Amino acid sequence: MDKDLILLGHGSGGKLSHQLLDDLIIPALSAIPLSGQNDAAVVEHDGRRLAFTTDSYVVDPIFFPGGNIGDLAVNGTINDLAMMGAAPLCLSVGLIMEEGFSRKELAAILASMRKAADLAGVRIVTGDTKVVPRGKVDRIYINTSGIGFFAHDLQINGCRAEQGDKVIISGTIGDHGIAILAAREGLELETGIESDSAALNGLVLELLKEGDAIHVLRDPTRGGVATTLKEIAVQSRVTIQLQEAELPFKAAVKGVCAVLGLDPLHVANEGKLLAIVAAEAAERLLARMHNHPLGAEAAIIGTVSGVSDGRVQMETVVGGVRAVEMLAGEQLPRIC
Amino acid sequence: MDKDLILLGHGSGGKLSHQLLDDLIIPALSAIPLSGQNDAAVVEHDGRRLAFTTDSYVVDPIFFPGGNIGDLAVNGTINDLAMMGAAPLCLSVGLIMEEGFSRKELAAILASMRKAADLAGVRIVTGDTKVVPRGKVDRIYINTSGIGFFAHDLQINGCRAEQGDKVIISGTIGDHGIAILAAREGLELETGIESDSAALNGLVLELLKEGDAIHVLRDPTRGGVATTLKEIAVQSRVTIQLQEAELPFKAAVKGVCAVLGLDPLHVANEGKLLAIVAAEAAERLLARMHNHPLGAEAAIIGTVSGVSDGRVQMETVVGGVRAVEMLAGEQLPRIC
Repeated sequence: MDKDLILLGHGSGGKLSHQLLDDLIIPALSAIPLSGQNDAAVVEHDGRRLAFTTDSYVVDPIFFPGGNIGDLAVNGTINDLAMMGAAPLCLSVGLIMEEGFSRKELAAILASMRKAADLAGVRIVTGDTKVVPRGKVDRIYINTSGIGFFAHDLQINGCRAEQGDKVIISGTIGDHGIAILAAREGLELETGIESDSAALNGLVLELLKEGDAIHVLRDPTRGGVATTLKEIAVQSRVTIQLQEAELPFKAAVKGVCAVLGLDPLHVANEGKLLAIVAAEAAERLLARMHNHPLGAEAAIIGTVSGVSDGRVQMETVVGGVRAVEMLAGEQLPRIC
Repeated sequence: MDKDLILLGHGSGGKLSHQLLDDLIIPALSAIPLSGQNDAAVVEHDGRRLAFTTDSYVVDPIFFPGGNIGDLAVNGTINDLAMMGAAPLCLSVGLIMEEGFSRKELAAILASMRKAADLAGVRIVTGDTKVVPRGKVDRIYINTSGIGFFAHDLQINGCRAEQGDKVIISGTIGDHGIAILAAREGLELETGIESDSAALNGLVLELLKEGDAIHVLRDPTRGGVATTLKEIAVQSRVTIQLQEAELPFKAAVKGVCAVLGLDPLHVANEGKLLAIVAAEAAERLLARMHNHPLGAEAAIIGTVSGVSDGRVQMETVVGGVRAVEMLAGEQLPRIC
């Protein structure tokens, strides 16, 4: 492992990604910490706040059960805005294709982008298309960037987890990552697992009705639930304690993880959110999630149990307690 | 040439790019025409206008005389905002790197992005990093997206060229494209040509002092001056007549084009703008350009000579008139 080279793990969303960001990218690009660990930047202009975010999608394969690179790119960027409590206003699309890419596949991808944007009530307003010689990109990569606005004065960000808060997840864990893995290995039919790719802005709008009880929202994508909770714990300087028995999983996802030795808490989700909320509002928020199609399987999975330098631990089903850490290497390259 | 496949020319910025946009991408993605032929979209929110734009950079080589992929990406997106008459507010950066890419080269690229942003007075506020296995991208591609705001009520766009208007270019033509070509062929030393990559927002601010006399601003990047003027002519339904004798070129650029049989009007620029302006203000605007470091070699190169379905023609130095058309195929892949 040459320390002068970029490694696959630097794109994992886990520990190595954080190191690259902290050691090189953020100090180089910005006098102030970019968007920090949050999903989008908040920019103040003319007395108003805007949310701004960008994501490049390099998922392999580009078509998978439950979606394709196009709707994944639309939903993912909408979610980054929604996790700041912002209402998505518009998106940009940057396409990089290799020479010889099929127009038919391009049309299918674009149609699913349009459908995803329409479903979420967001407009695609600008774009860019590049074509590189065959072999200089793997079929197609898509960047989506987005602008959101704030219809409220709430401050929702990773620094706001407080002792006593409850941790809610909006549904089953690990579906996207395992769907991609199954598609890659040709196991779709056996497992029947589909990506959970979905736009969460509607669900967030519902949660915002509880106002300031919402402290943190975050979608556990690359690096999974473990990495996301660890990020929040570090930002807020708290300990988060999970209850293993409460974690919602599809049986097939749990099965694949067991067989392959994957920790499902490190597996990516693309249509789930983690909410860290005031304890007194937790049951009401859970009920709001249960009334929404994208939150039907929501569960309270833990508590902010104390103050620390940023720890996540889990009470296991057999009664022990284990530390939960960020994804250390690269589990599944090109998951999104 | 298989009509079902994407070709290199679809990324040229010329005729094939326009066909792909008009036939497939725009109808698929948007109920309304995206940003149309303009460099950025204008989004109305809460009674105010924002400009929003995105560009992916795939230039080869990534380091070239006069810049690298990093400052090119920052300047290019700033210019797309500036060409709408918007003041750039902030940028996002999306990195896609291949496994094994050099951290040292990454650091150099990021440093030049920061320097370019600082020079233009624009902040980089958010980003995303993806790493793909070796060979799944050619070293590094960078997407930059940007938000701009309007400090005025002027409408500057490609539909506003009017009969009698003058056409101004802010400096010499074709420097970026020929610098890239020379770098690729190992001819840097012989030619001494550097890319003109620069942020034009400061120059635009100067021009805006002439207010509504500014009808169209456009930076002639992919496809060059010919393609950009043809786009404007079609959008505004006018004929643009150029004077070949007035076109500013560096001698070395003209020489390389002559030897290689390239039409310099199809060669990309990355730090030049075309302004189509009211005739009565043309000399004042030219003087304003001459007083700015990025407009020292500005020249009035033509006139909007009449109304048509969108034509560009050039009075040649020997007194003839020839039609100027969009770039037809792909002249230099991966120019930006």
